[in-house]
Amino acid sequence: VSPQKSGHRYHPDKPCKRLVLYFHDILFNGTNKANATSAGAAGPTQLGAYQFGLLAVFDDPMTTAPTLASPPVARAQGFYFYDMKSTYNAWFAYTLVFNSTEHKGTVTILGADMMDEKTRDLSVAGGTGDFFMARGVATFATDEVQGFDYFRLKMDIKLYECYN
Amino acid sequence: VSPQKSGHRYHPDKPCKRLVLYFHDILFNGTNKANATSAGAAGPTQLGAYQFGLLAVFDDPMTTAPTLASPPVARAQGFYFYDMKSTYNAWFAYTLVFNSTEHKGTVTILGADMMDEKTRDLSVAGGTGDFFMARGVATFATDEVQGFDYFRLKMDIKLYECYN
Amino acid sequence: VSPQKSGHRYHPDKPCKRLVLYFHDILFNGTNKANATSAGAAGPTQLGAYQFGLLAVFDDPMTTAPTLASPPVARAQGFYFYDMKSTYNAWFAYTLVFNSTEHKGTVTILGADMMDEKTRDLSVAGGTGDFFMARGVATFATDEVQGFDYFRLKMDIKLYECYN
Repeated sequence: VSPQKSGHRYHPDKPCKRLVLYFHDILFNGTNKANATSAGAAGPTQLGAYQFGLLAVFDDPMTTAPTLASPPVARAQGFYFYDMKSTYNAWFAYTLVFNSTEHKGTVTILGADMMDEKTRDLSVAGGTGDFFMARGVATFATDEVQGFDYFRLKMDIKLYECYN
Repeated sequence: VSPQKSGHRYHPDKPCKRLVLYFHDILFNGTNKANATSAGAAGPTQLGAYQFGLLAVFDDPMTTAPTLASPPVARAQGFYFYDMKSTYNAWFAYTLVFNSTEHKGTVTILGADMMDEKTRDLSVAGGTGDFFMARGVATFATDEVQGFDYFRLKMDIKLYECYN
Repeated sequence: VSPQKSGHRYHPDKPCKRLVLYFHDILFNGTNKANATSAGAAGPTQLGAYQFGLLAVFDDPMTTAPTLASPPVARAQGFYFYDMKSTYNAWFAYTLVFNSTEHKGTVTILGADMMDEKTRDLSVAGGTGDFFMARGVATFATDEVQGFDYFRLKMDIKLYECYN
């Protein structure tokens, strides 16, 4: 009658798969169509001074090296929005789309991006293809911010349920 | 110490439950209030020529036969948005709401809808009622597109974790 | 070859963890910056008379007692939107952020909020920290509505997969 799964040992330090990738976001400002990878589709509102309600849709490159010019190994497709009155803070939902010789499939991630924390954990809610039925945790760390033009997040994606 | 679940055999071709349903979306154009089932709530942006950032909220009928006039067996409530500069490509998050003699409960699905692919897999992140704690994969195929007036997706929803 | 998990007994009435919390939402109306906890970032559209497409971003307090003035034990960060032509009905996606001596971590919830039902079940898609890899069901009940100024939901969050 225990609701706990029997026979499971998910040690946070022992994922069955791990991907460490960099997420690069270049917000559309009206003049950078060639380079922009995201665009504000709604908001911001006038609630506070931290872009509350600005919702950005993105199709961002994911790379294994931190430099923007390094070859993408996946696309991150989804959205984030800012959601605090008192500081910059965001919420993300997106899918990593892999289509290379190394990986084919998707990983879908969502959760709060508490930007003031050095690292913060979001949830891996599912996966397909090579990541069929995956679950886990994605740890975000801000790696670089250049005003509203560019930001880079390090995403340490640890899967604890793997079927492939 | 293996993080792999013991005793699990999730064969992609052997779901514990399967639903094959058609999703019908009629976008509100300002004059079709009676028939429209979705409406653009944000965007599109000026980034590219493929409606980047157009976010549509929907309450769409789901049917077992492809014809729009066939009786709905569920509602699909959620949203999609377009997210590429170079082609039509979308991201979906929604809940199937069943309230019939056959099924009561919900199934929540999210992921990338890579419209250029013949089929694409999204993730079933959870369920309630008859679909309590469900997980799985939803395979989309575009079944019909009539400009911006109507599109129909075939959704092959395969659950690999079932508790009912 | 059974796709059913072996050794699992998830009884809906026997969660491994349970949190009963109240969600308080004060929508920004242009003049209540000090008190507002949410703001409309997109919509509504002209489809129907029930705010179809109004998307509100929120950073709402969660309390154990129903009164708004009681001390918050978590923040709920995310969004909801209205999605029916014929009645008020919503869809939610958000993360509960706990950062107290009692709980540290997050719980991410999404699903349909069928406001006309006395109670309705949404899905817990994941968790982190104290709620590492959590899954379950969140049962909503409307507790109070004061026009568009304030509403309160009782959220009975039952986790059936727990690893901490």
